[in-house]
Amino acid sequence: MLQSKKLVIVGGGAAALSAAMNARKENRDIQITMFTDEKVLPYSRCGLPFTIDGEIPDAKNLITQKDNFFKIIKVTTRLRCRVTGIEPGTNRITYIDETQKENSECYDTLILCTGAKPVLPKIPGVDKKGVFVLRTLEDAINISARMKQAKRAVVVGAGLIGLETAYALKKAGINVWVIELLDTVLKPVLDNDMAKLVKEKLEQHGIKVLLGKKVTGVEGGENVSKVIVEGEEFPCDVLVFATGVKPDVELAKNAGIELGEAGGIKVNERMETNKQGIYAAGDCAESIHRVTGKPVLSMLGTSAVRQGKVAGVNAAGGNAVYRGTLNATVTRLFDTEIGSVSITEWQAKAVGMDVVSVAVPWKTRAEYFPGASEIKLKLVFLKENLRLVGGQVVTKEGATGYVNLLSLAIDRGLSAGDLVHLDTCYSPPVADVWNPVCIAAELAVKKTAEKSF
Amino acid sequence: MLQSKKLVIVGGGAAALSAAMNARKENRDIQITMFTDEKVLPYSRCGLPFTIDGEIPDAKNLITQKDNFFKIIKVTTRLRCRVTGIEPGTNRITYIDETQKENSECYDTLILCTGAKPVLPKIPGVDKKGVFVLRTLEDAINISARMKQAKRAVVVGAGLIGLETAYALKKAGINVWVIELLDTVLKPVLDNDMAKLVKEKLEQHGIKVLLGKKVTGVEGGENVSKVIVEGEEFPCDVLVFATGVKPDVELAKNAGIELGEAGGIKVNERMETNKQGIYAAGDCAESIHRVTGKPVLSMLGTSAVRQGKVAGVNAAGGNAVYRGTLNATVTRLFDTEIGSVSITEWQAKAVGMDVVSVAVPWKTRAEYFPGASEIKLKLVFLKENLRLVGGQVVTKEGATGYVNLLSLAIDRGLSAGDLVHLDTCYSPPVADVWNPVCIAAELAVKKTAEKSF
Repeated sequence: MLQSKKLVIVGGGAAALSAAMNARKENRDIQITMFTDEKVLPYSRCGLPFTIDGEIPDAKNLITQKDNFFKIIKVTTRLRCRVTGIEPGTNRITYIDETQKENSECYDTLILCTGAKPVLPKIPGVDKKGVFVLRTLEDAINISARMKQAKRAVVVGAGLIGLETAYALKKAGINVWVIELLDTVLKPVLDNDMAKLVKEKLEQHGIKVLLGKKVTGVEGGENVSKVIVEGEEFPCDVLVFATGVKPDVELAKNAGIELGEAGGIKVNERMETNKQGIYAAGDCAESIHRVTGKPVLSMLGTSAVRQGKVAGVNAAGGNAVYRGTLNATVTRLFDTEIGSVSITEWQAKAVGMDVVSVAVPWKTRAEYFPGASEIKLKLVFLKENLRLVGGQVVTKEGATGYVNLLSLAIDRGLSAGDLVHLDTCYSPPVADVWNPVCIAAELAVKKTAEKSF
Repeated sequence: MLQSKKLVIVGGGAAALSAAMNARKENRDIQITMFTDEKVLPYSRCGLPFTIDGEIPDAKNLITQKDNFFKIIKVTTRLRCRVTGIEPGTNRITYIDETQKENSECYDTLILCTGAKPVLPKIPGVDKKGVFVLRTLEDAINISARMKQAKRAVVVGAGLIGLETAYALKKAGINVWVIELLDTVLKPVLDNDMAKLVKEKLEQHGIKVLLGKKVTGVEGGENVSKVIVEGEEFPCDVLVFATGVKPDVELAKNAGIELGEAGGIKVNERMETNKQGIYAAGDCAESIHRVTGKPVLSMLGTSAVRQGKVAGVNAAGGNAVYRGTLNATVTRLFDTEIGSVSITEWQAKAVGMDVVSVAVPWKTRAEYFPGASEIKLKLVFLKENLRLVGGQVVTKEGATGYVNLLSLAIDRGLSAGDLVHLDTCYSPPVADVWNPVCIAAELAVKKTAEKSF
C-alpha cells in the first residue's frame, strides 16, 4: 500500500471536505492540508439559496464543521490562499497566501477540487451594484443584505439555483420575475410536460416567468435599475444571474492535466487524472453517466461528496472506485417537490435513443385521506426492451423516495415488466395502495404491446 | 384463451374489488358478481383506524367506489349475502341472501376473497358492551359512537392495527393503555432496538404501554368497566382487541380446497387453488415470501390488491402471475413514520439465518435545515455475502421512500457493497447529501471486513 506522506487538497467545497475526511479515515498518519481562496471553512453550497430569505436563519449555519473539527481530524485548513500553479514534475503547488505573499508547498498526492465558476452573459451592465451571482457564502450574504431595501427582483435562469433563488426572494416579499432563454423551466432535468407543472406552481405563488427570451442589457446608474429583455424593460433593485456554471479547470489545464470531452478534468473511476498522484473531484471533474456511458459534468453535491470520498481514500493509500452518476436530483419550491434522475425524454431523443414515456397522475396518500394531493410521475423507457432510463416527479411530498427508487431501478437495468412487480408499502396517511411507479410501468407495457399488434 | 362466461367473487374487500376491476379490464364480456355479507360496498379496511377520531371525517369516505362505478364496469354487487358453501363438482355456490333465503349461483370461475377474522383471547367478559374489534366499517362506526362518552380506553395488542387505534383514541382526548403480550411493540415488523423508539414516541404522546403482560379477564356489568391483566386492574369504558386475525378458510376447507402450511388457502403464482377454476386472493390466501421462499400470511392491503388483480385477470381468461410478497409495511403514528420490509433480525435468527445488522441514526434533511429530524435506519444482511434481507426505519418523514427502495434492493439480491454505490438525490430541505442506506451499507462492509481479519 502506498503510504502517502503529504496530501494537498486544492479547494474548500463539498468535494474537498469529503476528500479530507475520508483521507483521514483511511490513513491516520498522512499530513492533510486544504487550500481555499474563500474566507470561511467549507460550507454547504446547496444551502445558499435557502439562506437569503432567512429560512435558514444565518448563512453561517451552512458551515457545519467548525474549526475544532479540523483540529480533531488533523486537517490543516489554509483559508484565503489562492493556488496559482501546479508543478507535477516536482510535486509542488504555488499559491498566494492570506498576506498576498507568493509561496509554495510540496505534496505526495494532490486532489483538485477547484469547483466551478458562474457563467454570465456577455452583455453591458453586469458589473453594476445590485447584480449578483449565487455561488459563495459571500454572495448569499450580499444578496441578503441588498434584499432588505429591494422591492423588485429579476432572476435570470430557470435552472435549480435560479428557481430556488426566485423562491427565496418571493418568500421575502419581493416581486420576482424569472427570465429564461430556454423554452421551459428546469430544462436540464425535466421534460416540457413536467416543467409546465412547475411553472404553474411558481405562478400560483406569484412568481412571474418569462421563457424563451434573452437578456440583452442591464441598465441603471451605479445601481441596477432595470433589465432589458429583447427590447422589453424589467425594472429591478436586485438582479441575480443563475445562468449556469462551468468547471474551473485553469490550474489543471496549465499543469498539463488532461480535460475530457464534457469540459471537465478527465478522471478514471479512482478519480485519478492523467498525472501520477493527482486526483480531481467535484464540479471541476467529469463523471461517467451510468446510462449513457458518456462523460458528463454532474455539478451535484451528491456527486461531489462521492467523488471527493473516492479521491480522498485513494490519495491516502486506499482503494475505492466511483461508479459514475445518474444525476439524481431533487428540490423543493414552496409546497412542491421536484425530482429527476438519469435522462429526460428530450435528452434521450437528442442523442438518438429510441424511447417511450409514460406520465401518470396519482395521489400521494389514499385518496380519501386528508392532505392527499396530486403527484405526477413520468418514466422514460427504451422502446426496444422497455428498460427504464429516466424518471421525473412533481409532487407535494415524497419526491426523494421516488428519485432514489428509480435511481436504483435504472442502475440495475430494470424493465417496465420488472417494475410492475415492485412490492411497495402502503398506509392511508402516507401512501396509496398502488404505487404510481407500478402503474406507469404497467401502462408502458400495455402501450408497447398494443403497438406491436 | 379460456372465455369465462361467469365469474363469481366471494368477498367484498380490497382483493375482491381489485379482482372485479381487473377481470373487467381483461374481459369486457364476462358476467361478474361479487357476494359480500357486509351491508356496504367495498371500502378501505386500512383506513378504519383513522376514522374513529375523525381524522378521516366520515367512515363512509372509505367507500371509494360508489354504486354507479359498479354499474359502469358492469359488476353486480350482492350485499348482505352470506355464501354458505361451494360445490366445485357442479361449479355452484350456495348463499343466504339479504332476505335470509337460501339460494345458489353457478360460476365458470370463482375467486375466494373471504379475508380474515379477528382472533380474540378466550377469556370471560369479551362479549360485554364497549368491547370491540376493529375489522369492519361497522366496527369503526360503533367504536366512534362509543368513544364520545368514553374517558379511558384499553387497546389489547401492539401490532399495527392496535397502535393505529390507540393513536386515534388518544387524539380524541381519551386516556389510553396499550397492553401487549409480547416483549415489544410491532414485534412482527421491528426488532427490539427499533421498537423501543416507537414505544418512546407513543409514551411522549401520552399513550401508556404495558409489554409482556397477558389480559386475563374483562369485568363490568352490561358494560365493560375494567380489564384484568395478570391480577392488575385497568379501568376502561372502551376496550379494543387488536390481537391479530386469522384467514377465513371455512368455505374453502369445506369444499376440499387445499390449505397451506401457513394456514391460508394454498395457491400457485396464478392464484389458483387446487380446484380447477377456483382462485383465492387477499387475507385468506397464502403468499410466497420472496426472501425465505416460504408461504406466509401477508395480511397487507398491498398484497390483497396485487393478488386480487392476478386472480381477476386469470379468472377472466388472461395470464398474470404474482411474484410473492416482501411484506413492505409502513404506518404513521403522531409525527412518526414506521416502515419495515422483508424480515427482521430476530425473525432471520429464528429461522436459522446467519445475519449481521447495522442501525444508523441520520438526519431527514441537511442537518442545518429547519425541520431536520432524526431518522433511524436498520439494515439486515446475510453474513455470508452481505446480501440485504431486511430493513426497518423510524423517522418523522419519508419512511415510504426508504421501504420501497429497500424492497427493490432486497428483491434484486443487492449486497451492502452494491448499496454503497447508490446514486441518491439531495437538497437541503428534503434530504441529506448522504443517504443513510449508503452509510449503513458501508458500515456493514467495514464491520464484516474487520471481523474477517
